Order: sequence, then C-alpha cells, then structure tokens
Amino acid sequence: MNDLFLRAARREAVERVPIWIMRQAGRYLPEYRAVRERVDFVTLCKTPELAAEVTLQPVERLGVDAAILFSDILVPAEPMGFGLDFQPGPVIDPPVRSAADVERIAVFEPESEVPFVYETIRIVRRELQGRVPLIGFGAAPLTLAAYLVEGRGSKNFDHLKALLYGEPRTAHALLDKITSTLELYLRAQIRAGAQAIQVFDTWAGILSAADYAEFALPYVKRLLSFLEGAGAPRIYFALDSAHLLEEISECGADVIGIDWRTSLSEASRRLGHRFVLQGNLDPCVLLSPVAEIERRAKAVLEDGAAAPGHIFNLGHGILPNVPVEHALRLVETVQSAVLKRSGS
Amino acid sequence: MNDLFLRAARREAVERVPIWIMRQAGRYLPEYRAVRERVDFVTLCKTPELAAEVTLQPVERLGVDAAILFSDILVPAEPMGFGLDFQPGPVIDPPVRSAADVERIAVFEPESEVPFVYETIRIVRRELQGRVPLIGFGAAPLTLAAYLVEGRGSKNFDHLKALLYGEPRTAHALLDKITSTLELYLRAQIRAGAQAIQVFDTWAGILSAADYAEFALPYVKRLLSFLEGAGAPRIYFALDSAHLLEEISECGADVIGIDWRTSLSEASRRLGHRFVLQGNLDPCVLLSPVAEIERRAKAVLEDGAAAPGHIFNLGHGILPNVPVEHALRLVETVQSAVLKRSGS
Repeated sequence: MNDLFLRAARREAVERVPIWIMRQAGRYLPEYRAVRERVDFVTLCKTPELAAEVTLQPVERLGVDAAILFSDILVPAEPMGFGLDFQPGPVIDPPVRSAADVERIAVFEPESEVPFVYETIRIVRRELQGRVPLIGFGAAPLTLAAYLVEGRGSKNFDHLKALLYGEPRTAHALLDKITSTLELYLRAQIRAGAQAIQVFDTWAGILSAADYAEFALPYVKRLLSFLEGAGAPRIYFALDSAHLLEEISECGADVIGIDWRTSLSEASRRLGHRFVLQGNLDPCVLLSPVAEIERRAKAVLEDGAAAPGHIFNLGHGILPNVPVEHALRLVETVQSAVLKRSGS
Repeated sequence: MNDLFLRAARREAVERVPIWIMRQAGRYLPEYRAVRERVDFVTLCKTPELAAEVTLQPVERLGVDAAILFSDILVPAEPMGFGLDFQPGPVIDPPVRSAADVERIAVFEPESEVPFVYETIRIVRRELQGRVPLIGFGAAPLTLAAYLVEGRGSKNFDHLKALLYGEPRTAHALLDKITSTLELYLRAQIRAGAQAIQVFDTWAGILSAADYAEFALPYVKRLLSFLEGAGAPRIYFALDSAHLLEEISECGADVIGIDWRTSLSEASRRLGHRFVLQGNLDPCVLLSPVAEIERRAKAVLEDGAAAPGHIFNLGHGILPNVPVEHALRLVETVQSAVLKRSGS
C-alpha cells in the first residue's frame, strides 16, 4: 500500500514527495474522452460505475500517489433546490438574489439525495484495494455562494459582491446555510471511504483580505473544524490567494494548497511554517518541452523543502491540451527525485 | 487650475487626496452611450473630436481631478502589423506564435501611424484649459505581448506561457520589440501634451514572481526609465499583483496602482513606503447603497494615509452597470474628506 500522500498530509516521515494532479481525471486523457463520448458530464458524475472508472484512470495511467473522486463542486446545488446545467460552464437557475431566495434553500440529507457520490467512493475504494488513498472534495462556502448568486461564470462577481457589501445579513444567512450543507455532504464522503478531503475555494481571491476575513474565513474554519477528528486530513486550496495567506493561516486545515503565483518557500514563511503545503507547478508548464518540465518540477521540489511537508501538485487543474506523456514525465520526475528534507 | 493629481503624483504637498477613476469615460455614463450609439468603439478611438469629447465627459459630469485619454491599449497593434478587431473583446489576427512572427513585427513611427492619438491629446489639452491634468496611457510590454500571442481573451494564457517557458529567446525578442514600440508611442503622448502616463499591466498577475522578474519587470523598468525626466509622472498598475509587490518595488515608477485585493497600508509596507499609491476601492462597491460606498471610500482614504502619498481610484475599471449618482457620490466623498496625513 502506497500511503505516502496520507503520511505527508499528516506531517509524518516520507521517503519521497507524493504527487497527485488537480483534475487528473480529465480531458487530457484519451480514456477519459472515450467515456465522455458515450455520456455527458452530468451523467458521468451521477453514474457511480463510470465516475469510479474515470477516477481510477490517472492512477493506472500516471501512477499518481492519490486518487481524487470524480465529481463536481456544484453537485450539492441540485438537492439544495437549484436547477444545474453545464453549457459547458455551470448554470444555476434561478440564482440567489434575495433573503427569500436564501430562505427557500433546502439543507438536504446527502446520502439519500446524492447517493451516487457515496456509491462512487465505495466502488473506488473497493477497486483501489489500498493501492493509493482516495481524496474526496467539495467547494468552500464562499465559492459555492459565488456560483449560486452569480448563476453562471462571472468576470467581476458583481451580483455576489452586491450581496456581500449591500446586504451582509442576507449574505451571512446564505453562507451559514451553505456551510451546514457542506458539513454533512463532506462528512458523508469521509464515512463512505474518502481518506482525505480537499476544499476548493476557487473564488476566494476576488475578495480583499478584510472581506475574506468577514465572508469566507469564518465558514471555512467552521467547515474544517466540523470535519476534524474523522481521520481524514483536510486540504484547503484557495486560488489566487497571495493577498490572503495571513488570514488563511487561521483556517485550521492540515494542508494548504498554493497556486503557482506564490513560491512555496514564500508561502510557508507567510503561513508561519505551520502547514504541509500542496502545489504548485504552473499548469501551463506541462505545455513546455520535457526538459523545461523537469527543470521547473525540480525547482518546485527544492522550494517545497522549505515547508514542514510537501505534496506535489500543479498550482491549478491540468489543462485539457496537455500531452499525456508530459503529465507522465512530471510524475516520474517527482517520484524519482531524492528527498532533500532532513528528517520529518 | 486643479493640479492636485500632479502634485500628489510628485509627492508634493496636497490639500486633499485627488481622485480619478479607471475607465471613467465609459458605458456607465449616458452621454458616453449616446456617442457609442453613433459610432463603434474603434471609430471612436480613431476620431479625435469624438475621443476628446468622451475624454472630457467625466471631468464635466463627475468633477474628477484628472482626465485620462480615451483610447485602447491595443492601438499600437495595428501599426505593428496586426489585424485588430473588437467582437467586443479584442481579437488580434494573426497572433504571434513563432520567431518568424516576431521578426515581421514593425517598429513604427507613432506620430505618423496613429496620429489620432496625439491629435486627441492636443484637443483635450486645449479644451481643458488647465482645469485638470490629462493622463496618457499604454500597456506594459508583458500585457501587450499577452494579447499579441493569445490573439483573443484567454483563461489560462497557455499560448503566451508556452512561448515564455518553452521558447524564452523568442519571448525576449518579442518583449524587446514591444518595449521599443511602447517607448516611442508613450513618449510621443507626453510630447503631444499628456501630463502623466499610466502603464497598465493587466496580465502581469498570471506570472509567478520568478517569471515576472524574468519576463515582465525588466521591460517595465526599461519603458519607465525611457519616459523618465520628461516631466510626466509615471504610474504603473499591475492587476492581481499581490504576489509581485517586492519585484514591483524595483520598477522605477513614481506611482504604483494597487487593486482592491491588497490594502494600501499593506502594499505600502511591502513596497518599502517608497511610492505614492493609487487605488483601491473594489469597483463592485459602487453597486452598493450610498452609505456603504461612503463607508468603504473613507476606509480606503484612512488606509491610504499610511503611504507617502495617495491618489484615490478604484482597484480596477468602473463597471458599466454602476449608477452615475453612485460614481458622483464617491467623488464627492473623497473630495470632501479632510486629509489625515500630517505634512507632505
């Protein structure tokens, strides 16, 4: 059993730096595209046998040190009472715009409302037979709120911010309800067999540090605290959050994901050297020649040695146009690197 | 004559904090929309009488402390040899993808190739009669390169980064040529009458600090150094650059623009308290009720007092759906605030 990822996440001794890749079950893999030719994205998410199949694809093809559940951070939106469609970007209908809209949101019972999520986890665990750990995931409250309020992709998030700035009480009621939902949704993932949880705060970076401290951090803390003690390390990844690292240091996660903008050594310094870090190769590097991929991957490994622990990953999801050989070369480079850290 | 903006930019004593607004000549103004009903965006940029008219609109309507040339950062693309269209986002055709493409780029003589830019500046200066100063502007080299290489809006800038990471020599040749172009283009704006220059580095934030130091900073320094001593303060604004502030402190600008993510006091600290700062109210705040606009504007003013000088602005361009009364209320709030700074 390869439990490097879990040991690194728990800050235990590891022989080498483990690696997995955000969106590793995705379009860059021909075997994923083959499945998607048969079913659309939503059907894939909701069909446990197929979701399990694509979850396992990068484990087989790349030999990464962890699997991550194939799903979408917007899966909870439907049982909360929203229409959800992918065109291909997500569309939430109708979006949240008022206190009455917040009132109508259902706090649902996840195992009965989205059983496919948990069934996928059970199948994957069975098929993995302990080869590598399985990571579950969900959105952070602010990020789920951003989707529910905007309704679709947004450049400036003006609907969300109009709510946060103009109607803070309604915003807090929404975030409170979302957090309660995510607590149950993610705890049930751990119960079903997820051995770690990653919380994606994709849109946290649109807020100033002061607004993040009011509208995002308290709910992240509550969610991560709710999931504490269940035996699953908790990873918090906020994209574009270089201006938020001091606030993030209070979130209570076991592992902090860092995007490619901030070096891991600088991030660790600003986080008080208190966290295992995950990241942070620029996803676009995988479009470069192999020699450059190797050079930059090694630089990230060296830089990550400044943190109390390091799980290699990209700084954001792998791009659909990456050649599979490049992803493979990255995994091989990281897995064959000699660990520079002294002790644990 | 109201020269508050210029005095603040030069770090001289001011009675109050001056304010102007990025994209202040824009769609949120009914008089701007009236002009745009008659002509398209490109025609507006290329017709000095109309471009001057919309440049002056926010001075008349809002009473801001500076005018900024109505133009587009992609105006130099056409004389460089590219097709330029707005659909409505900019489309550059054909984009730069190879060393041969870089070779073909023309370094043009701006006064003869884009005379409308300079004629607009002359008309505006004449019509302003010294009421407020006029700011000229252009793209930073990396940002212009991003448009020329991507060819259109991009989420991940994978073409640009493939060039930077995979073919750094070609990338440097492109950036060198762009910088030479921008040097002449912006110096001619000062000669025509622009009393300050703002350099927009809209896409700098997509790079890590190390890549920014290699591909963006040296060219910004060269451009700003070329413009030094011409009597026009130089403002450098890099969007989403919280992870780059230490590098930006070396750029040689007179004024650093800060987006809404980082507080002005924190930015000033990280910049070594060596720069006048411009910013940084979140543009979405102008969608809030007036009381919240006032509260947050005052907070920015207080925070800005930590820097050696402060020019009030939004943290990015004003949004098209902002009510004019809200923009007006912001200007009034800033202009009626008592200066907290002690001395200069």
